[in-house]
Amino acid sequence: MKLTILGCNAATPRKNAQTTAQLLEIKGQMVLIDCGEGTQLQLRKLGVKFARIQHIFISHLHGDHFYGLIGLISTFRLLGRSADLHVYGPTGIKEIITLQLKLAKSWTDYKLYFHELNSAESEMVLDHEKFTVETLPLDHRVYTNGYLFKEKVGPRKIDQAAVETHGVSIADMENLKQGKDISLDDGTVIENHRLTLDPDAPKSYAFCSDTAYKPDLSQLIKGVTCLYHEATFLDSHQDLALKTKHSTAAEAAQIAAAAQVGQLILGHFSSRYPDLKEFITQAQQHFQNVDLAEDGKGFVL
Amino acid sequence: MKLTILGCNAATPRKNAQTTAQLLEIKGQMVLIDCGEGTQLQLRKLGVKFARIQHIFISHLHGDHFYGLIGLISTFRLLGRSADLHVYGPTGIKEIITLQLKLAKSWTDYKLYFHELNSAESEMVLDHEKFTVETLPLDHRVYTNGYLFKEKVGPRKIDQAAVETHGVSIADMENLKQGKDISLDDGTVIENHRLTLDPDAPKSYAFCSDTAYKPDLSQLIKGVTCLYHEATFLDSHQDLALKTKHSTAAEAAQIAAAAQVGQLILGHFSSRYPDLKEFITQAQQHFQNVDLAEDGKGFVL
Repeated sequence: MKLTILGCNAATPRKNAQTTAQLLEIKGQMVLIDCGEGTQLQLRKLGVKFARIQHIFISHLHGDHFYGLIGLISTFRLLGRSADLHVYGPTGIKEIITLQLKLAKSWTDYKLYFHELNSAESEMVLDHEKFTVETLPLDHRVYTNGYLFKEKVGPRKIDQAAVETHGVSIADMENLKQGKDISLDDGTVIENHRLTLDPDAPKSYAFCSDTAYKPDLSQLIKGVTCLYHEATFLDSHQDLALKTKHSTAAEAAQIAAAAQVGQLILGHFSSRYPDLKEFITQAQQHFQNVDLAEDGKGFVL
Repeated sequence: MKLTILGCNAATPRKNAQTTAQLLEIKGQMVLIDCGEGTQLQLRKLGVKFARIQHIFISHLHGDHFYGLIGLISTFRLLGRSADLHVYGPTGIKEIITLQLKLAKSWTDYKLYFHELNSAESEMVLDHEKFTVETLPLDHRVYTNGYLFKEKVGPRKIDQAAVETHGVSIADMENLKQGKDISLDDGTVIENHRLTLDPDAPKSYAFCSDTAYKPDLSQLIKGVTCLYHEATFLDSHQDLALKTKHSTAAEAAQIAAAAQVGQLILGHFSSRYPDLKEFITQAQQHFQNVDLAEDGKGFVL
């Protein structure tokens, strides 16, 4: 699983500080999470083959999280896309996009599916062959979801040495990967676990932005490999965090600690802070393994 | 009058090639013409005090000409704007913007006026104290207007030497600027033209994008100081120009020649041409004084 931060600035894009968008590569699939203005340009700058994106997850309908979506959808059309595209986001997103396509007389040549969300409870919105995606209801000024991406457990791994020792036929490999026992030509049955190894532990990624401090969120993201949690403010602006329904670095870290995640990435920084080091310091009062998001930065999970 | 090209690429933004947007400074007022995705970032990069923009003119509802508008409107709100903002563009633009503001629960604190256009005839859409703006109906795949900006004739200029010779009172200067004759204390009347000089000739700028070759356009822009005319294609793609209702460099130059404009700027280049010099060559078959638009380039008219 590889995460690339395309933008992580709050509210408005600035020189060298794009608004929220992330690219997640999961089991060979590319998904886009949020799509602030200029996301398509960030993808180009980073040399991403963005035609490969098939699923886009929008957290909420504040501009800094989706104003780049219509441009990306239009560019896909201009580049001759034929693959389906699925967009997940709050109810209303379909109307915004289709109204603009209609007025421009620019219907897409590819199939564009909208999956509009309005549930206050977590729900599975995508059950892909290789991974699942669940919503994480957040607490913000408008209806907002984070998203939890979980790899599915892969096939069992062949133990090459054991397979050779027992002279297992190449034709049995697929059954072994599926966990089945196999019978040799002489009738001997060999149990699967003697010929295979456990698959890699599936990884998981939780994206949580934007949200006020929401302690019960930790229950939904227990033990995830990596948590991205918004940290718009430092302690000194706790009042603003409350008023605008955003979180501080310390609050994000408390969620990470309670959920016992592997790693915490902070982002969605307010432009008022010229130096971001203090975000690390304040977060580490509660949780040690903290990183800061940064435009263009990649994280291998 | 000063024109700054913020973007001039056709269809989709690319690395170092923004879609259409221009900033026109006219008699101390700042107007924005078209607003492709990322325009607010271009304004920041160029260090423009963009809060000064009070009028925005959108040519048509293709994304490469207006996808940056909602972001700019939102950013104005976040920056605490209080001055009115006027947006001119095709019918539908109000619905697109207000739908997004509504779903984000983000009404502007400043007054936002939409002037929706649907006339097939040229009309005056703004009669400002210092300049006027008229529409230039164009021929494109959707309803499209160019815009003609004309400075108003300024006050007459005081002839300092003549004024001193005749001992004219300082109290009479405003009347002189307004073209009035004045009476000296001894009753002598001096005609205005003996004390003043003609004001500077008013300048004019015509923005024409996007459009198929439209010969009768030259009647509406006769003698303008500067014409920006789209030139999406070269002669070799005349068929594409016809099909997509765009112009070639040669066609743009023919309009400039027929209208006897002072200067022609070409823009809205298709991304298929790595070298733009040929646009100059083909245009100069018809009109000599040609320049190419370029992101960030300024033209003093």
